[in-house]
Amino acid sequence: MNSIHSPQSRTVDKTYIRDTFKTLQDEICKKLEESDGTGRFQEELWHREAGGGGRTRIIENGSVIEKGGVNFSEVYGVLSDQMADVLQIQRGGTFFATGVSIVMHPISPMVPIIHMNVRYFEVSNGEKWFGGGIDLTPIYIDVPQAKGFHQKLKGICDRHHASYYPTFKKWADDYFYIKHRHETRGVGGIFFDRLGVDDTFTIEERFDFVKEVGEAFAPIYTSLIQSNRHLPYEEAEKQWQRIRRGRYVEFNLIYDRGTKFGLDSGGRIESIFMSLPPEVSWMYNFQPQPGSKEAETQKLLRKEIDWLNG
Amino acid sequence: MNSIHSPQSRTVDKTYIRDTFKTLQDEICKKLEESDGTGRFQEELWHREAGGGGRTRIIENGSVIEKGGVNFSEVYGVLSDQMADVLQIQRGGTFFATGVSIVMHPISPMVPIIHMNVRYFEVSNGEKWFGGGIDLTPIYIDVPQAKGFHQKLKGICDRHHASYYPTFKKWADDYFYIKHRHETRGVGGIFFDRLGVDDTFTIEERFDFVKEVGEAFAPIYTSLIQSNRHLPYEEAEKQWQRIRRGRYVEFNLIYDRGTKFGLDSGGRIESIFMSLPPEVSWMYNFQPQPGSKEAETQKLLRKEIDWLNG
Repeated sequence: MNSIHSPQSRTVDKTYIRDTFKTLQDEICKKLEESDGTGRFQEELWHREAGGGGRTRIIENGSVIEKGGVNFSEVYGVLSDQMADVLQIQRGGTFFATGVSIVMHPISPMVPIIHMNVRYFEVSNGEKWFGGGIDLTPIYIDVPQAKGFHQKLKGICDRHHASYYPTFKKWADDYFYIKHRHETRGVGGIFFDRLGVDDTFTIEERFDFVKEVGEAFAPIYTSLIQSNRHLPYEEAEKQWQRIRRGRYVEFNLIYDRGTKFGLDSGGRIESIFMSLPPEVSWMYNFQPQPGSKEAETQKLLRKEIDWLNG
Repeated sequence: MNSIHSPQSRTVDKTYIRDTFKTLQDEICKKLEESDGTGRFQEELWHREAGGGGRTRIIENGSVIEKGGVNFSEVYGVLSDQMADVLQIQRGGTFFATGVSIVMHPISPMVPIIHMNVRYFEVSNGEKWFGGGIDLTPIYIDVPQAKGFHQKLKGICDRHHASYYPTFKKWADDYFYIKHRHETRGVGGIFFDRLGVDDTFTIEERFDFVKEVGEAFAPIYTSLIQSNRHLPYEEAEKQWQRIRRGRYVEFNLIYDRGTKFGLDSGGRIESIFMSLPPEVSWMYNFQPQPGSKEAETQKLLRKEIDWLNG
């Protein structure tokens, strides 16, 4: 994979990181449009009164994507107590945060929902760190595809440190967990936070990793689109998709720290809620038929599956 | 209105309150079935491992009601710290809680969503109190109907104390508020909590009020159904309904203390989530056309409207 920027001769500071994230947003939108074929991103710039703003890019009613967003934001100012609590850091002082957040809801229940986020924080006590992750939410879990997805993530992780994949894979299992349903959001992926607060790696090394995660998104997802977009499905599969999308909403509104941070930091509601799917349904006590494809997927919505060697 | 029980010669204790709530559930289900015409409630009994359980009654695919629940529950045991924090009471000790919770999602966007709850709590430090409320969420606000709704609630409140309606109406405005949208969930109603912790009224007087609120639900809602069930609507109205239902989900999953208490106290998920609507949609940045019926409703989704004298 080619790197967007050459790793030589640059200072990894907030300006550089922000610019890299903006370029990443551009590249990803371009590749997703090519892959979708007909859908085009609509851009909206927004301004945050207390400091900063963002560049929201939404795609709706494409050939593959029903609704999705690739959002860049850069917000800064006084750290509210609420924000400090969500970030689990000390209260007081100021902050700077920039990131790219992606969620894609495809039309077809055969194409998985995907989420990716890379973000950078600085607070006025001198702490700075990266966070992020990628996770996949198939409506129907295809085990070889889940394996391929994890293999790609492991490949990226391993180029940076042998501890990354096992640590970040477990972190994703724990983070993307819908506690009240006792089920995971999907097949997981990787999740990491506060990379850089300790001094095991330089901030440049952490940045190189995070950038590679961001750059991996487009090839990983467009390849999944390519493989699955023409698979047939019927109304029963669409119904299961609406139910699974309901779980996605439950996770995002009840547990997701990114959503909470967005709401607490005065982010733009419509940008934050681009992650919420179209056409969702809550049916009372829906239980898949034993032995059905839906039941097979349901069984795999749990932590600690070793996708690589399963 | 006839009272279910005679007010004479009874001790208002948790057993009596629980039995009254069960009878209330029976009465309401009966009247809703009569009003709907074809829909029938399906009952599911559930058991809570840590103590108690409930009687969930769900109606789906009726002539008027698309999905709704009239749930009775009675739960008790050790008070967890999480539950204490949600209830905003001191940690430690044991609790007893019983109540009836109702949410109705009609098929027609011309028939409003409604919610009612009455509940009773006791904790081992000796505190006991009632809580509850009724609030109405029209997809299209009909001002005379909203006025009629508030008049009925004021009538009930005034029979108990002149302070009740103004206090509980404001409480509903504040409680049923979707902060991140800067809009109310609907036209409000009444909301109250911790009635009985102070000693202004006897527990019998508080109980008489709460029972009357519970008994008011069926006549209020069946009359609204009767007035609106035959109003015509088209796909545009259904689309607006899916969007408004999305707001209902946002409120319930992000703010509703009843939902949080249910999740934290190990309640039955499918019973708690009966409040979530079927067929919901999140469209990116939907804005009603200026001057449209949708825009008129949007304008009225705010606090401090004096519906009685508006």
